[in-house]
Amino acid sequence: MSLDPPPVNVERVVNELEQLAAISDCPEPPPAVTRVVFTETDLRARAFLRGLYEQAGLTVRVDPIGNTFARWEGSEPVLPAVGSGSHTDAIPHSGIYDGTVGVLGALEAIRVLKQAGCRPRRSIEVVMFTSEEPTRFGMGCTGSRLMSGAITPDALADMRDSDGDTYDTVRQQAGFSGSLADVALPGDYYHAFVELHIEQGPELEAASLDIGVVTAIAAPAAFEFAIIGEGGHAGAVLMPSRRDALNAAAEMTLAIERLAKESRSPDLVATVGRLDVHPGAVNSIPSRVAFSLDIRDIDGQNRDAVAAEIQEALAAIADRRGVQLESRELNADPPAQAADSLIAAAESAVAVLGLKHQRMISRAYHDSLFMARIAPTGMIFIPCRGGVSHRPDEFSTPEQISAGVQTLALTLAQLAE
Amino acid sequence: MSLDPPPVNVERVVNELEQLAAISDCPEPPPAVTRVVFTETDLRARAFLRGLYEQAGLTVRVDPIGNTFARWEGSEPVLPAVGSGSHTDAIPHSGIYDGTVGVLGALEAIRVLKQAGCRPRRSIEVVMFTSEEPTRFGMGCTGSRLMSGAITPDALADMRDSDGDTYDTVRQQAGFSGSLADVALPGDYYHAFVELHIEQGPELEAASLDIGVVTAIAAPAAFEFAIIGEGGHAGAVLMPSRRDALNAAAEMTLAIERLAKESRSPDLVATVGRLDVHPGAVNSIPSRVAFSLDIRDIDGQNRDAVAAEIQEALAAIADRRGVQLESRELNADPPAQAADSLIAAAESAVAVLGLKHQRMISRAYHDSLFMARIAPTGMIFIPCRGGVSHRPDEFSTPEQISAGVQTLALTLAQLAE
Repeated sequence: MSLDPPPVNVERVVNELEQLAAISDCPEPPPAVTRVVFTETDLRARAFLRGLYEQAGLTVRVDPIGNTFARWEGSEPVLPAVGSGSHTDAIPHSGIYDGTVGVLGALEAIRVLKQAGCRPRRSIEVVMFTSEEPTRFGMGCTGSRLMSGAITPDALADMRDSDGDTYDTVRQQAGFSGSLADVALPGDYYHAFVELHIEQGPELEAASLDIGVVTAIAAPAAFEFAIIGEGGHAGAVLMPSRRDALNAAAEMTLAIERLAKESRSPDLVATVGRLDVHPGAVNSIPSRVAFSLDIRDIDGQNRDAVAAEIQEALAAIADRRGVQLESRELNADPPAQAADSLIAAAESAVAVLGLKHQRMISRAYHDSLFMARIAPTGMIFIPCRGGVSHRPDEFSTPEQISAGVQTLALTLAQLAE
Repeated sequence: MSLDPPPVNVERVVNELEQLAAISDCPEPPPAVTRVVFTETDLRARAFLRGLYEQAGLTVRVDPIGNTFARWEGSEPVLPAVGSGSHTDAIPHSGIYDGTVGVLGALEAIRVLKQAGCRPRRSIEVVMFTSEEPTRFGMGCTGSRLMSGAITPDALADMRDSDGDTYDTVRQQAGFSGSLADVALPGDYYHAFVELHIEQGPELEAASLDIGVVTAIAAPAAFEFAIIGEGGHAGAVLMPSRRDALNAAAEMTLAIERLAKESRSPDLVATVGRLDVHPGAVNSIPSRVAFSLDIRDIDGQNRDAVAAEIQEALAAIADRRGVQLESRELNADPPAQAADSLIAAAESAVAVLGLKHQRMISRAYHDSLFMARIAPTGMIFIPCRGGVSHRPDEFSTPEQISAGVQTLALTLAQLAE
């Protein structure tokens, strides 16, 4: 293909991002967005995307858990394809751009490559992964996990949402049928996979750069803790006799924060994002507290070492306060390295386009983490305002999005040549 | 009347307590009980009580917010009456005896006095106060507050529940009509008021005593705090850049615990019973946290001094962590002293019955705190196992309940002579 900058129609992309954002269960209007997997709203978003894929002349395939592949047939369709995509589910009260830029951006990249007369040998597919967010089932990236064999069909089928319904039941009620065993892709299915995404951090904006070429993806682990203390009347039980589950949880939360800050790795982050108090009455001493821990690092060993320190610290606090502590590891995934071939392709695209870039790591959790197990994988980041994500004020400018889509288009063109 | 021990039918009282406990919204069966004011369940409990009052030949009056008076007419009905009662609402997942022993116990006391041929000059009334628990509107004792003029009709009418419905709307939907201004009782309505209640603390059981004669009721205060920090993606925002609202709340919760423990008064207790995290997602940094503070002491000045220290400490934590702190005082009531006449009447009853007793203070919050503003008031405590209350395992033996009802009956008989 020509090495001219692809004529990205960014107004079209932004318009499609806004139409998608309007398909939301958030009580507040966009930019606040809530779109949880397998809800009626998720299904409407999928129907909207299918319409765009078909308008673009792509062939759509949906697997048994709703991972969606929109294929632009190459001149040699038997060759392993090039994949690009992300997710469209959104945690409660989040924003417009997380995931969606990678799906609609990949679609736009194909549209401009077609328009530019590009005729790649390899097919190029837009992938929309099911349930990148852990909102409903407590574990994220279930679509790419099953696709890459990182989780077994049985383990996935048995996961339950807060209503106690299994993943298998819910996906079938949402209209996705077929054997979960058919979701895994063969190792030679993709020649390469690349995901365009907002950075979800402040580095690119701070350095006034257009593009981040990802070299590694941080490894997340998730835990669930339950504290059983002793309840009672807030007026009657004197302070020395208390075994308050919330005070124990508070001390544990601060221990987690301290150990994360003291970690040898500046990239290690630990977050208590959920904390539920029982019985939750103004005048009742909390008897039970459940809370979550999300801990990540680009160094999996360091992450696991800090997670172990945290477990020790929490057990010591529980002992000292005379409360019972139960802990459960939900997942602990290894970090992923980007393929040199993908880094090279993205950097040559950036060079052609005259954009400013840096190599960087992804601290956030992406489907690419799992795609890297079955294909040479890379990620292209664009800046987002203030590094803000998972919030309604998450924002990237049309220019930033356009630069990302141009970079993705040229990267895909090279990989598919 | 004769000074023989009144022939309390404790099987009947326990049976009525158990029937009342079965009227519950708790998903678990009794002894777990949930009965929130103005719910359909609260109304069923009120209907059950009315049936018992009528069987006992008492005249029932219900005021515009549902405070219920069941009157045994004295030989000189024009004289100020003697009142005795408590509440039947129950916080989520609590027990059988809190409040209910004071209502059904007062009913049994009247039944046995009638049976014993007692013919008092003054009328004796069983009072069931509306909403002693703060569960629904955030403020407790709304029935006795309005009855005693401790809150204005307008202030009460405008209080809202978590659905945003006002007290005035909800009480009318529950079928209670009439002007809120008519709830306040004149200062000469009651000659005396006495409340029978489980101790909700461990002292009587530890000292193997039958009865506690209350000399003072601790003063509760309630506050609501909101912390506004900065949310974001749990993977992307590095630890040093965070303004995590939950970590700030955790530090504040521990500061409250520490200041309460360090207080000069051993009777001071402070509890964070509610804590809500927004957005509450595993992989999202908490951006907002709301929590409650309940703080009590028999020394109102000390309580207010510690509450002020807590406010200062919380403000300092908010500053240091760069989060915004909003605080609201829901109520701060003065402590109450029991009337000497009531203490004397209860102690002479205990002497006649040959029971073992001690004078003590009530650390828990009762409608008597407000009744003391409009009538000479006292309280009679019975032991409860392990001092446990507001929990399903709250328990007093039939013998303990019987001793309490006998003491109450003789106390009422003297006061009504």
